[in-house]
Amino acid sequence: MIPQHVLDRVVDLALAEDLEGGDLTTEATVAADARGIGRVVARSALVFAGGAVLARVFYRVDPGVRVEQRIADGELAEPGAVLMVVEGATRSLLIAERTALNFVQRMSGIATLARRFVDALPAGSTTRVTDTRKTTPGLRALERYAVRAGGAHNHRNDLGAAVLIKDNHIEAAGGVRPALARARARAPHTSRLEIEVESLDMLDEALAAGADVVMLDNFAPEALDEAIARARGRAVVEVSGGVGLARIAELAGRGVDVISVGALTHSAPSADIALDLERLV
Amino acid sequence: MIPQHVLDRVVDLALAEDLEGGDLTTEATVAADARGIGRVVARSALVFAGGAVLARVFYRVDPGVRVEQRIADGELAEPGAVLMVVEGATRSLLIAERTALNFVQRMSGIATLARRFVDALPAGSTTRVTDTRKTTPGLRALERYAVRAGGAHNHRNDLGAAVLIKDNHIEAAGGVRPALARARARAPHTSRLEIEVESLDMLDEALAAGADVVMLDNFAPEALDEAIARARGRAVVEVSGGVGLARIAELAGRGVDVISVGALTHSAPSADIALDLERLV
Amino acid sequence: MIPQHVLDRVVDLALAEDLEGGDLTTEATVAADARGIGRVVARSALVFAGGAVLARVFYRVDPGVRVEQRIADGELAEPGAVLMVVEGATRSLLIAERTALNFVQRMSGIATLARRFVDALPAGSTTRVTDTRKTTPGLRALERYAVRAGGAHNHRNDLGAAVLIKDNHIEAAGGVRPALARARARAPHTSRLEIEVESLDMLDEALAAGADVVMLDNFAPEALDEAIARARGRAVVEVSGGVGLARIAELAGRGVDVISVGALTHSAPSADIALDLERLV
Amino acid sequence: MIPQHVLDRVVDLALAEDLEGGDLTTEATVAADARGIGRVVARSALVFAGGAVLARVFYRVDPGVRVEQRIADGELAEPGAVLMVVEGATRSLLIAERTALNFVQRMSGIATLARRFVDALPAGSTTRVTDTRKTTPGLRALERYAVRAGGAHNHRNDLGAAVLIKDNHIEAAGGVRPALARARARAPHTSRLEIEVESLDMLDEALAAGADVVMLDNFAPEALDEAIARARGRAVVEVSGGVGLARIAELAGRGVDVISVGALTHSAPSADIALDLERLV
Amino acid sequence: MIPQHVLDRVVDLALAEDLEGGDLTTEATVAADARGIGRVVARSALVFAGGAVLARVFYRVDPGVRVEQRIADGELAEPGAVLMVVEGATRSLLIAERTALNFVQRMSGIATLARRFVDALPAGSTTRVTDTRKTTPGLRALERYAVRAGGAHNHRNDLGAAVLIKDNHIEAAGGVRPALARARARAPHTSRLEIEVESLDMLDEALAAGADVVMLDNFAPEALDEAIARARGRAVVEVSGGVGLARIAELAGRGVDVISVGALTHSAPSADIALDLERLV
Amino acid sequence: MIPQHVLDRVVDLALAEDLEGGDLTTEATVAADARGIGRVVARSALVFAGGAVLARVFYRVDPGVRVEQRIADGELAEPGAVLMVVEGATRSLLIAERTALNFVQRMSGIATLARRFVDALPAGSTTRVTDTRKTTPGLRALERYAVRAGGAHNHRNDLGAAVLIKDNHIEAAGGVRPALARARARAPHTSRLEIEVESLDMLDEALAAGADVVMLDNFAPEALDEAIARARGRAVVEVSGGVGLARIAELAGRGVDVISVGALTHSAPSADIALDLERLV
Repeated sequence: MIPQHVLDRVVDLALAEDLEGGDLTTEATVAADARGIGRVVARSALVFAGGAVLARVFYRVDPGVRVEQRIADGELAEPGAVLMVVEGATRSLLIAERTALNFVQRMSGIATLARRFVDALPAGSTTRVTDTRKTTPGLRALERYAVRAGGAHNHRNDLGAAVLIKDNHIEAAGGVRPALARARARAPHTSRLEIEVESLDMLDEALAAGADVVMLDNFAPEALDEAIARARGRAVVEVSGGVGLARIAELAGRGVDVISVGALTHSAPSADIALDLERLV
Repeated sequence: MIPQHVLDRVVDLALAEDLEGGDLTTEATVAADARGIGRVVARSALVFAGGAVLARVFYRVDPGVRVEQRIADGELAEPGAVLMVVEGATRSLLIAERTALNFVQRMSGIATLARRFVDALPAGSTTRVTDTRKTTPGLRALERYAVRAGGAHNHRNDLGAAVLIKDNHIEAAGGVRPALARARARAPHTSRLEIEVESLDMLDEALAAGADVVMLDNFAPEALDEAIARARGRAVVEVSGGVGLARIAELAGRGVDVISVGALTHSAPSADIALDLERLV
Repeated sequence: MIPQHVLDRVVDLALAEDLEGGDLTTEATVAADARGIGRVVARSALVFAGGAVLARVFYRVDPGVRVEQRIADGELAEPGAVLMVVEGATRSLLIAERTALNFVQRMSGIATLARRFVDALPAGSTTRVTDTRKTTPGLRALERYAVRAGGAHNHRNDLGAAVLIKDNHIEAAGGVRPALARARARAPHTSRLEIEVESLDMLDEALAAGADVVMLDNFAPEALDEAIARARGRAVVEVSGGVGLARIAELAGRGVDVISVGALTHSAPSADIALDLERLV
Repeated sequence: MIPQHVLDRVVDLALAEDLEGGDLTTEATVAADARGIGRVVARSALVFAGGAVLARVFYRVDPGVRVEQRIADGELAEPGAVLMVVEGATRSLLIAERTALNFVQRMSGIATLARRFVDALPAGSTTRVTDTRKTTPGLRALERYAVRAGGAHNHRNDLGAAVLIKDNHIEAAGGVRPALARARARAPHTSRLEIEVESLDMLDEALAAGADVVMLDNFAPEALDEAIARARGRAVVEVSGGVGLARIAELAGRGVDVISVGALTHSAPSADIALDLERLV
Repeated sequence: MIPQHVLDRVVDLALAEDLEGGDLTTEATVAADARGIGRVVARSALVFAGGAVLARVFYRVDPGVRVEQRIADGELAEPGAVLMVVEGATRSLLIAERTALNFVQRMSGIATLARRFVDALPAGSTTRVTDTRKTTPGLRALERYAVRAGGAHNHRNDLGAAVLIKDNHIEAAGGVRPALARARARAPHTSRLEIEVESLDMLDEALAAGADVVMLDNFAPEALDEAIARARGRAVVEVSGGVGLARIAELAGRGVDVISVGALTHSAPSADIALDLERLV
Repeated sequence: MIPQHVLDRVVDLALAEDLEGGDLTTEATVAADARGIGRVVARSALVFAGGAVLARVFYRVDPGVRVEQRIADGELAEPGAVLMVVEGATRSLLIAERTALNFVQRMSGIATLARRFVDALPAGSTTRVTDTRKTTPGLRALERYAVRAGGAHNHRNDLGAAVLIKDNHIEAAGGVRPALARARARAPHTSRLEIEVESLDMLDEALAAGADVVMLDNFAPEALDEAIARARGRAVVEVSGGVGLARIAELAGRGVDVISVGALTHSAPSADIALDLERLV
């Protein structure tokens, strides 16, 4: 679910960028009473995401446009599949088209990439693939939603939702132990404590100090196996940092609990989606 | 130049996503009086863009952070190059880090991709590569700026800035001629009239009706040459639609004036940029 | 068409100014269940504009108010003509009245003045009268719409929509030729290049450098005729700067293509419109 | 004084209208390091108003622009007088120019018209001329300020600031007496009660019921004299509705306390103000 | 009445605080098609206020939720009384619950406290109890509404609605007389002049200078009686400053016209209201 | 730390409520060049909180006001203690006074109440007192900050920060076990799982299903002891619901880990803080 106030905020912002001065072309060439039906079509295989956003764009341009979703968010669409259908004044359909597509192309691009990562997990694996905070400024709620639609998981939502202690924090706090102690003393009791470790020694220190989640940074394969063995039953093991599709199966096979992938949101190519318009009147 | 009110809007929106509840980790582990210096470093070769946005993020988190730009927007940075330097309270540097990087990674990703397209043009070519309206919702001004920083050009800013007549407009207006006539009758006299054509016949009709710019849709190579020949001296010739890097040199060689590339903004992978923090106090 | 997000922005801003603390008088004197019908009436002859804005004001105060537009935007209304009818809770009608009227009085004032300028053109003239960027801060979209409703045309929407090179730009660029060259190199290919010239020599230079539109500044009548002759077929000719109603016919007669008139938006007197309320229950 | 948050709101809104896509012309033709000095000059006699708004526009475009006010708000400026001086990057001066002038032209137009009304009062008169709620949507605080700068007075700020009972309220309440009683029972004790009356009988009823201010609607001269005589010492007498400059002296002479004039804000012609730019570097 | 634009502003702000990242718990545990009915119940005796705000919260989360108000704003509810009923998707009911309750608990808390003060007045008393400007930042309109719902009155809405001269103003103006004279010269004629006085001498000066309302600061009982006697028929008498429930009857008995009580809004304990949810499907 | 964008949002909103139409009184009575010094003074013993907010209010009214904080946030102030000092134009000090005080009175009221709860814990206790989501709409970040300043802890920030399963979620999910399983499957791995239980049986089920935090609802003392014994080492134990100061020591003594108290934010009485102004010029 994307909250309504989030939808309104992003949709109005996007429309303001494109439509502040009206649509010169459409108002000049299309009669006010012309009506049409538009089919939002997948041009390549994709996992769809963002139906509610697309609907809201059309609604904000013209509440009279009827919108129907044919393929649910999170479902796979084959090339040519009709994702959604919009019907109403042709002017409104044309005016809203680009803004609406910009949203679902991005969101479906993310969902599609997330699905590819999830599909790369071995069958029955309990490893989860998550996003990071490397989201597009202004679109975090939408992109995290798209990640979930693709079948992957979310990492913490923001800096105030959970603790993640990195190297600079450790150095500033004077070590793993004081860093974890201070964080536990301050953080809500509903948050787990995650800490990034760079060696087996640091890992041991973190586990001893009660870390709930350990993020292994750049561990060689053998060290990784050893780290996972030591952490088993004591902490969730996360691997992060430039993990590509090619390594997902291997990491899951070794028993990593969580693989966080910034590319899910910062480098997903746009999905190819178009609006085919048919004249009604 | 990105106007100040645009900077403030996007920066505050991004900070609100990440920092509404403060930064649990940093406030717990870093002393309030600790100071540091951060170096914004290119991790791979890239064309930098967005220094002013990064500066504004740090400023909004803490006006006391000093920011210095070392590599100008639009310049090529080698891996390891220091792009910017920030100095101030360590807490502020850590709190702003991710949001600031999210902006410049995206913008530099776009600038870098734009540069690759521009570099693909034959030496001395007058063909221009442009963006489209397929920008990230909420970030159009920033992304268009990044496109320019990369050396490419902008297409029309929004639906009210210029006329671009597509197939649906032509059908709604009853043909090329009435579509162009109506648009000319209504559009500001400062706007050129662009129209998308699908055949040589349509092209002729468009030229006869006074189109200033013709967008050739899916023309086979021979038809393209013929079209360019017919349009020469009468209209600007634009080619659009899924043009990849591989075709840039060829299209420029044939004499196309403008190649518009949606991928510049909708599918540019994020540039790899990090903040290396050094403790001062 | 005025985009919905623009309507909401200006209407909520206007209501916030007037209604932040409620309406002391109406809430004290009018029963909550009283219903009424209000007729929005022209008190003098006018060209109506802004029906959608008026409707939106009543809607934001009370979605239960029924609004009907009797005279379309752009139509001439005689004194006494009923422009719109609103029906609903008397409280809502009274609370929204002033804010709603403030919008349509201003917009109709502009439309009415625009119509007077257009009517001053000789029969069959192709000269167009346009607005300028001298609009009321915050109301540009509404005022440009009103100008069109009056039958006049819009100039460029904003600084990013088209190029208009004035004396300071020319001086800064080092002359007409470099100014036009630089602008062409940078501006979207969808924008025409307009330049202001002060003499026939400058005009020649501008035409030679490929200006698409020339704005003639303070040309004496004979020079004007000569300028128009030289520009014919090569550039659109615009005249600007303090042109009153009295000169419209003359300038059109000489063959000027465009006359831009700042007074359309910055000095149009308000149209006289009132709300006559009748008690229903 | 115009509160800072109001300045920021209107200035950013105005800049967003004009500068969302940057300034094509200035960025193309003016070097980034060019500097200039601009003189804001009165082109005709006017009462200046809005210096702080103009300053804020330049500040929001570029905090580096230095702004100096030469003629205080509320002072008379002769044609050619330098009102303000701005100095900084030529690009910034050109980009902000139009938006800044749009504000002060409107505000000075209002101040100038207000001054003309005030000057029309007989010497030593205690009659005050006030504005109404017929202000430009979004600009009420600025326009009321300009009215004061011109030497006139403000009427109530909004619907929640004071009570003003009009014909519809009286009819809804069932008469003058119950309308006043209800308003007194509800309104803050800091508000006076104003009521519009159409006859001497209504006036008597209003005075008997404790009205603090009576607005005389369309009273013939003799009736007006009689009404003023009856109200003397018991209530403030206001006349409203289409009063032009020509009647100000007469009404003041008869002893009217307050003359409210909607035209001050809804129909003041723009003052003629320009920015003369001189190249520094 | 709370204006719609105010409702939207506060409701969206509150939802943004709680729901920016969705509701982890509800989305995980409640089926999308589950439906329920919720009863908003008073857990202790209270005066209800805020039904429209609660309705708007549910509407913004899900326009499909049906909301019915059972006990009107301003009515007394016994413990266990059903104030409102909401029906719709269980997810939406749970997601909106806390935010909706936060509003009505606060507003009903204020209304309940206001009622206690009003009930403390002697039967038939004309003394009014009012709020002050000590309201919660961002919620003034809602809290003033709740005060009225409780049967108390509002003081001036804001700094621009009426004049209230305090000790610092008197000192700055050089005395009671010049302070009142300057305020009368500037304030709208619709505003009464209120002034705070600390002695009988200051009171006499204020009355002589035409104060409409006098606020007695820290007068001993005998001085209070004398002050009221001197002001009778000449000015409204207000007492302010830390007046608790215990003194209301006494002050009213002495003939004070207005007692302003900051605690109504700054220290009212929250009313105890809960949402009882019943599963429908 | 309260993020800057949060400060700006709440401060501007508060100023807009109070200052939209200027300050009639201050502008009339205080000379523009008068300067003063104001001391923000505790009128009763309190724990101070909100210095940065107060500073921001004065800054937004007038950037020229100098602000100095004398008593740090979180420190105890005796009656008469000077908390902060502001110096600048007297007008600015008077205009900002009420809005600034409204913030710190509320925040210090919360901090003071939080301190009382924390002080009620036995010496050396590791039990923490936390707030809840029952915060004032629009002020959550400020109120959570004040809770910390008082020495208490924060519960989860919002619905997206952590999982808290209540009775309705359990019923909807079909039991404790499926509710926890679904939440774990979906929630970020950085979130602990909290669940509310009403009996020892439910507690056992929750512990068996891996709950990280258990909230005990209405357990009788003996059952509470038994519950704590069963949960020891397996889950954090939280008690919530109407816990007053009187029970804090007892609950801590029994070994409860967390006591969450809604009253910290929804019913804290305002702290008594005033601004004493001294004339400088």
